[in-house]
Amino acid sequence: MKIGVDYYPEHWGEDYWKEDVAAMSRAGVQIVRIGEFAWGMMEPEEGKFDFQWLDKIVSMFTEAGIEIVLCTPTCTPPQWMFEKYPEIIQVGTDGKRVPIGIRGHRCMNSPLFRDKVKTMIQKLVHHFKDNENIAAWQIDNELEANFCCCPVCAEKFREYVKKKYKTIEKVNEAYGNDVWSGRYTSFSQINPPFGTHQTWLNPSYMLDFNRFASESTVEYLNFQAGLIREIVPQMKLTTNNWLPENIPDFYKLFENMDFVSYDNYPTTVIPEDPEELYSHAFHLDLMRGIKRKNFWIMEELSGSLGSWMPMTATPEPGMIKGYALQAAAHGADAVLHFRWRTAKSGAEMFWHGLIDQSNIPGRRFEEFCSLTGTLKENPVPEETEIHNQAAILYSTESEYAFKIQPQVEGMHYFTQLKAYHDAFTANGVGVDMIDANSDFSGYRIVVAPALFLADEELAGRAEEFVRKGGHFVLTNRSGVKDENNQCVCRALPGIFADLAGVYVTEYDPVGLKKQRIRIQKDSWKQGSILCVSAEDKDTAFARDELCCSLWCDILGIETADVLAVYGENFYENAPAVTRNHFGQGECYYVGTVLNRRGMISLIGEIVRVAGAEHIMGLPLGVEYTVRESEKERIHFLFNNTNRKKKMELRRVNAYGMGEPVKYELEPFEMQIERQML
Amino acid sequence: MKIGVDYYPEHWGEDYWKEDVAAMSRAGVQIVRIGEFAWGMMEPEEGKFDFQWLDKIVSMFTEAGIEIVLCTPTCTPPQWMFEKYPEIIQVGTDGKRVPIGIRGHRCMNSPLFRDKVKTMIQKLVHHFKDNENIAAWQIDNELEANFCCCPVCAEKFREYVKKKYKTIEKVNEAYGNDVWSGRYTSFSQINPPFGTHQTWLNPSYMLDFNRFASESTVEYLNFQAGLIREIVPQMKLTTNNWLPENIPDFYKLFENMDFVSYDNYPTTVIPEDPEELYSHAFHLDLMRGIKRKNFWIMEELSGSLGSWMPMTATPEPGMIKGYALQAAAHGADAVLHFRWRTAKSGAEMFWHGLIDQSNIPGRRFEEFCSLTGTLKENPVPEETEIHNQAAILYSTESEYAFKIQPQVEGMHYFTQLKAYHDAFTANGVGVDMIDANSDFSGYRIVVAPALFLADEELAGRAEEFVRKGGHFVLTNRSGVKDENNQCVCRALPGIFADLAGVYVTEYDPVGLKKQRIRIQKDSWKQGSILCVSAEDKDTAFARDELCCSLWCDILGIETADVLAVYGENFYENAPAVTRNHFGQGECYYVGTVLNRRGMISLIGEIVRVAGAEHIMGLPLGVEYTVRESEKERIHFLFNNTNRKKKMELRRVNAYGMGEPVKYELEPFEMQIERQML
Amino acid sequence: MKIGVDYYPEHWGEDYWKEDVAAMSRAGVQIVRIGEFAWGMMEPEEGKFDFQWLDKIVSMFTEAGIEIVLCTPTCTPPQWMFEKYPEIIQVGTDGKRVPIGIRGHRCMNSPLFRDKVKTMIQKLVHHFKDNENIAAWQIDNELEANFCCCPVCAEKFREYVKKKYKTIEKVNEAYGNDVWSGRYTSFSQINPPFGTHQTWLNPSYMLDFNRFASESTVEYLNFQAGLIREIVPQMKLTTNNWLPENIPDFYKLFENMDFVSYDNYPTTVIPEDPEELYSHAFHLDLMRGIKRKNFWIMEELSGSLGSWMPMTATPEPGMIKGYALQAAAHGADAVLHFRWRTAKSGAEMFWHGLIDQSNIPGRRFEEFCSLTGTLKENPVPEETEIHNQAAILYSTESEYAFKIQPQVEGMHYFTQLKAYHDAFTANGVGVDMIDANSDFSGYRIVVAPALFLADEELAGRAEEFVRKGGHFVLTNRSGVKDENNQCVCRALPGIFADLAGVYVTEYDPVGLKKQRIRIQKDSWKQGSILCVSAEDKDTAFARDELCCSLWCDILGIETADVLAVYGENFYENAPAVTRNHFGQGECYYVGTVLNRRGMISLIGEIVRVAGAEHIMGLPLGVEYTVRESEKERIHFLFNNTNRKKKMELRRVNAYGMGEPVKYELEPFEMQIERQML
Repeated sequence: MKIGVDYYPEHWGEDYWKEDVAAMSRAGVQIVRIGEFAWGMMEPEEGKFDFQWLDKIVSMFTEAGIEIVLCTPTCTPPQWMFEKYPEIIQVGTDGKRVPIGIRGHRCMNSPLFRDKVKTMIQKLVHHFKDNENIAAWQIDNELEANFCCCPVCAEKFREYVKKKYKTIEKVNEAYGNDVWSGRYTSFSQINPPFGTHQTWLNPSYMLDFNRFASESTVEYLNFQAGLIREIVPQMKLTTNNWLPENIPDFYKLFENMDFVSYDNYPTTVIPEDPEELYSHAFHLDLMRGIKRKNFWIMEELSGSLGSWMPMTATPEPGMIKGYALQAAAHGADAVLHFRWRTAKSGAEMFWHGLIDQSNIPGRRFEEFCSLTGTLKENPVPEETEIHNQAAILYSTESEYAFKIQPQVEGMHYFTQLKAYHDAFTANGVGVDMIDANSDFSGYRIVVAPALFLADEELAGRAEEFVRKGGHFVLTNRSGVKDENNQCVCRALPGIFADLAGVYVTEYDPVGLKKQRIRIQKDSWKQGSILCVSAEDKDTAFARDELCCSLWCDILGIETADVLAVYGENFYENAPAVTRNHFGQGECYYVGTVLNRRGMISLIGEIVRVAGAEHIMGLPLGVEYTVRESEKERIHFLFNNTNRKKKMELRRVNAYGMGEPVKYELEPFEMQIERQML
Repeated sequence: MKIGVDYYPEHWGEDYWKEDVAAMSRAGVQIVRIGEFAWGMMEPEEGKFDFQWLDKIVSMFTEAGIEIVLCTPTCTPPQWMFEKYPEIIQVGTDGKRVPIGIRGHRCMNSPLFRDKVKTMIQKLVHHFKDNENIAAWQIDNELEANFCCCPVCAEKFREYVKKKYKTIEKVNEAYGNDVWSGRYTSFSQINPPFGTHQTWLNPSYMLDFNRFASESTVEYLNFQAGLIREIVPQMKLTTNNWLPENIPDFYKLFENMDFVSYDNYPTTVIPEDPEELYSHAFHLDLMRGIKRKNFWIMEELSGSLGSWMPMTATPEPGMIKGYALQAAAHGADAVLHFRWRTAKSGAEMFWHGLIDQSNIPGRRFEEFCSLTGTLKENPVPEETEIHNQAAILYSTESEYAFKIQPQVEGMHYFTQLKAYHDAFTANGVGVDMIDANSDFSGYRIVVAPALFLADEELAGRAEEFVRKGGHFVLTNRSGVKDENNQCVCRALPGIFADLAGVYVTEYDPVGLKKQRIRIQKDSWKQGSILCVSAEDKDTAFARDELCCSLWCDILGIETADVLAVYGENFYENAPAVTRNHFGQGECYYVGTVLNRRGMISLIGEIVRVAGAEHIMGLPLGVEYTVRESEKERIHFLFNNTNRKKKMELRRVNAYGMGEPVKYELEPFEMQIERQML
Repeated sequence: MKIGVDYYPEHWGEDYWKEDVAAMSRAGVQIVRIGEFAWGMMEPEEGKFDFQWLDKIVSMFTEAGIEIVLCTPTCTPPQWMFEKYPEIIQVGTDGKRVPIGIRGHRCMNSPLFRDKVKTMIQKLVHHFKDNENIAAWQIDNELEANFCCCPVCAEKFREYVKKKYKTIEKVNEAYGNDVWSGRYTSFSQINPPFGTHQTWLNPSYMLDFNRFASESTVEYLNFQAGLIREIVPQMKLTTNNWLPENIPDFYKLFENMDFVSYDNYPTTVIPEDPEELYSHAFHLDLMRGIKRKNFWIMEELSGSLGSWMPMTATPEPGMIKGYALQAAAHGADAVLHFRWRTAKSGAEMFWHGLIDQSNIPGRRFEEFCSLTGTLKENPVPEETEIHNQAAILYSTESEYAFKIQPQVEGMHYFTQLKAYHDAFTANGVGVDMIDANSDFSGYRIVVAPALFLADEELAGRAEEFVRKGGHFVLTNRSGVKDENNQCVCRALPGIFADLAGVYVTEYDPVGLKKQRIRIQKDSWKQGSILCVSAEDKDTAFARDELCCSLWCDILGIETADVLAVYGENFYENAPAVTRNHFGQGECYYVGTVLNRRGMISLIGEIVRVAGAEHIMGLPLGVEYTVRESEKERIHFLFNNTNRKKKMELRRVNAYGMGEPVKYELEPFEMQIERQML
């Protein structure tokens, strides 16, 4: 596992370079990323390329033995290009070209832009094709789904629809266009989603536009990848991922990449409300799950964030080192801190790096050096990987469909995912976040929160999984939509009804008001007690009663057992949470949204029933993970809070309960234990 | 009185139709509304009309003995029309065509659109002219004032202004254009109100634009009515009314219609704050008052609402039936539930019908069946009508003027109306909401809340009414504006000053902060006690002290008696509420905005003094109304809350106080008592 | 010192004029302002000028001995001009012409508009050039920096940049354009700042655009001044200043004016939170500081404000008189109340004047008459001026830079200035608000809050000032930026480091959360006690503990003494406030933002150490100021609150502590004491 930094030689005079490279060496930097915004320096005039400056700094890093991630600079076309070819600029839903000056405002579908990209990449890659110090290429930067409404995209979207449905009549069917006289008589009537009131637009059409926007981005990425591989076929390729407003399909995005990268900026302000979810591991596990293998952090928190927003608090002591090690504990093979030194000009000058503009190393830099020191003593080999018994399914199309049609105030797709992730973590169970469309047969427990849009194939896989002994968790808002984002015409959870052994007789979107709920099974109640560590016994969290909110499915029972019932409203005593024995396994149905206390208890119960290996006694905010290879197992115990934590942990698995072991962790401290196999 | 549903045959395959019609028959459906969004199905290509599908379903309903409301589908022009004739699309205040895809975005003034409408309506009405099962035609859907800024409307508005004022000099006078160099030298300088900061625009001009927008809609409606009546002169016509942002003049809108229809969606979440007004009867009485006769509910709450907004809670048990009966109790002769089955596609799929997409009847549907059963046992004949002794005046132009110039934070025209309506209801007095421009001589008590803009004619009618013994209530913000929306240059309440016997020496827009007030008359205090039922004695509401907020007129007395004075500020002890003996009657002036407790007490006092018939002992939220014909009187007692209510009621009228009678009502229960005459 | 009113003869028929002028005479009005929105009346058609109506009213005032401020009406071009020459209309950041109908929407750079202005002014001034009753001309109205994005301004901005930097390469350097490929290759690529997300734009470029917008306005003002002075070279010129969103550089704006005018609208609602700053004197002192001499109030609060916003509460008794006298106490030589009578038409009809539309004089008018009476008895001669020992620096460019890049939630440049102003006022020390770019060598104490952007010259002046014995106060966010709005590459406070004797090792943008802080010096603690009057001892304010928020600089000490340290976080015990002995003086560095209690205590300590004259025993909200000439000294004691205040005051100066004197002030009462010299 490597530690590195993001560096912008083009922001600083050459005078800085020599000392910067030397300082990086001393600090233990093993890898740098450069070039992702430097098109203006690489092609200062149309057709005139200048890589001399880049040669210099690349040589300096090469001599210093620091590996390089080189980037295609296509996120920021130069000003002359915007001036000469305004048609390469994205068009917003207001029908106007996005104002330039900021970054990322190019239309990825523009043929003219693609031409310019092609020339640039061919020149650039060719120039550096023989440099053996280049560890990987990063393509573009923080790609969003290309939600562009320009004439090129409009036409391309029409072609997308035509190709998918062949005839306009099929489009009308798929979109249910007989509502509100929405029937097209010609493909020319299909346009991008203009206007600010997008929730008034047809949700089936909107889902297709989201798919198209995502595919445009995937195609754009692969277009760049192809150009690079033509010249350096063996080169590792990646792009740095994030969670933008318009999320592309991560699994398709990285299908053709060598590894996933992620830009990791955990919050620097610890929430005080114990109900507020607080674990950055969710994102790390989501990233690892994309290709189901180790990944990189291409940008990592290094200081206060700000610039287009007011600044956040500075990272507390321990955060910079701790969050980097947490990434390693969840599968990162490289962590590059953003950035070596804070910018002195441009719109990003208050997004702080490891060193401030003064160039005087301070507390944050020292912590970074301590990080590299720790990893030198305690290396985390790339061949160590993570193997978990539990998984949570992520469905890109459910995410789109939820965004297109908000279900009830306060309910978001990602929040549902995070709540389940949090509950596994609290129970000392490592969990993978994986594509709902992928094979999940190897797990003991699989949770599918709010699988809003799903197809028979997925339902079949779920049934097969349970039939063979798996433990599957379904929730409210599952099986609601078909592949066209139309509502299914059967009792919910629709295609999952047999598996769940329940049907939704009616639902109540109760919103933010808390609702009483009553547990029916003692085991779950015990689980609820077990999962609370001694440390947390006296906290507000522990005293909190189990309750629910947002959504209440009122369940009818076919074959399932009732685990919990509602405690108020006209559906008092109606089933809220159930368990259905199906084949050799169990399918849970969670008809409501439990509070944190309830969620942790429920997952505790499920883990117990499934016989999954877990750690007992973890205080809230302490995370346990394992990386292993054939040779060794590395145990990570991380205090993700700003309070000292004491605990007595016991491992529980098929062989029974282990002996208790005491631990003490300072705020954000990571404890690493190696075990040889 | 009939019960029906809204139905969209075009959303469902023909396979559904037969069973749907049969199920409706079984459920007691007497009438359906169809067709209001189906232009795309009726004219799938320009000039090609297809009514075959409609014939089929119309026949099925006819055979089943279910009456039909057919609609002109002009709210949703087909996509081919938008593509070929973009000039029919409304233009917003940003000067741009509204993005299509949603509904209702046609410019009602567009000559081209009118042509298309004409052809469609002539074909459609001609086609069905001989069907005797058609009970009425609904024209278009949920009409707003046509607030369109397209070139056609701009020119038409100029003509409107020219016709009204003849010369540009008269326009300048009427608008007071010498302010800020607003003087026009040519009609061509008059434009629609572009821009987002409309409160910066001249309020006199803005009022005219609102009038013009309303008249455009009225003219459009009558244009359609004319086309229909040419073919079927005896046919009943209506349009379904609502309360949009840009409200047309209801009285002009329905002048030429046979009856009023309303889309009735009471809230499903009962407010907890006893100060929050909560009675849907206000809207029902407003609708009945438009033509001063019975009306229809064309769309009625059937489930959770959502789609472009997050979903609301589902209706509590009793609401679906109770709200429908409440409509009957306030004069509805038909209630059509929106909709038979929830949509499976399109943007409205979470605006729930009686049956969900699964087509499995559930709790809501059962309640609907219980409703039809109850009405079969207990029919409410159309000839029974409502006769009240009290009325509240609604002034379209005051509503416009208040919207154009917000007076103080928290003060809205409709809230003022509702507060008085609520106070009558709480005192067991039925109340009509009527046009301020109509004759109100038949009532005992007339309240004119916030008659911001008023003319001499209205003031004369009010004086005549009081002179002959009427009880008239004026409030703050009355008589402020002349017909040009300029401020009157005399002491407020201006034209009402003689009648009120007071003048406003100064006012204080105090906003949301509560102010103390002191009652001067014992009678009012007693009223305050009397109006609280035993049931409510221990509630927060009953303990609440009488106070005021928002606005304080500091009154000078000419001839009036002081009923209440302010209890703080530099105008402590200045008159706040007065009563002026005038001719044979009384005129009250309410210089401030009382809290709910105060408002109910005050109206109690006024009812007592006026000797109006009323019911004592009603708990808050229980409503009493009467429908009567020559043959019978039907008494309705409705629990508009989600708590069980016990009460002991006594009728008070000219003959004295009746004997106490005990009642008990379940949540949302309606008790109906028939009395033969 | 004169009292006057703003009057709009063009809004009222000539019938009103005679009586209005007579009533003004009776009321003691000495001066009126007229004409600033009357272009439409002065040039009713293009090229046809009409000053007859103006002649009449001017004659009437002249005969009545009432002086006149005449205005150029260029804020509101007539409608025919907008129609014929739409290119004179401003363009917003959305690239569209601003919707007209409101006022102030002309592009000050438009050559065509300038032509029209030129003709109008030449005609108008020539017409009145011999009237000796005209006291001054007001140019235009409430000028903002001309933030226009029209093609003319775009081109002019390009020229501005070209002139400043000569080559495009210098522009790229100054803007740091190598970030995000922002490098220009041609001046034609420079555009106005389009788009809504302006914080994403390059801050160096944004600062230049702000400078350009300000200079455009200054140039426009001087263009008008030149036209007037060509005809009447001796005439006094001014423009009425305010605090708009886009503030021009006040010092350059008024460089060429004879005196500053200000539109003074203090709040009518007294805040309840003692932490909320509440003194309108800040604005008055800011205005006096622009030219460092007496100024005028051209518009003064006369009633409830409203129209484009809901109305505010009406002024409490005493406010109208008290605020006018407060202006005098801070250097106003004229106060003109806005307006004589409230408008009856146009968008401003709820922005209340002294008399309401009814034309019946009321409480507010009586208070105005009492004001003129008081000043007749107790004249405040124009030759009396204010001489203070303390000053606060205002930096236009720091204000721009703070606005361009918000630093942390809740932190605003003006709030910082106000907090220091408040602290001096509470300590009974008069304070001047002056240009940071001006000479401040005459003061004992100079505070420079948040001198975000500063240059060596200013740092040099500060050092010189302290070296000679001055007391200088620096705060966090000082010396952060160079003149190009790039971050300086040295430890903060950068150019002030030597003077402060500290350096910022790191900072923590803590935001709104309160932080503990501990005082190290007893003297400061005492100051903290002394500054609280007996009156305030029991208030929440007095019990409040000293704390800080928003921003925490963690200081390293070079030569300074530590006055206070942080009381929590990882930098507990790190220096927060320091004092550095430098030459003969002291430089304080305040690394955080103290709460009101802390700020007052700190300034108390600084005043004590500096030996500045001050008044002990002032209750919060009571303000003490002095105007003096060679002949006399006038002491003003003003109760800026709505509570009666009792106090015992002692003067402290070089001669020691004076005898205690008791005072009692009614709400908003001004006590004036004359002292002959």
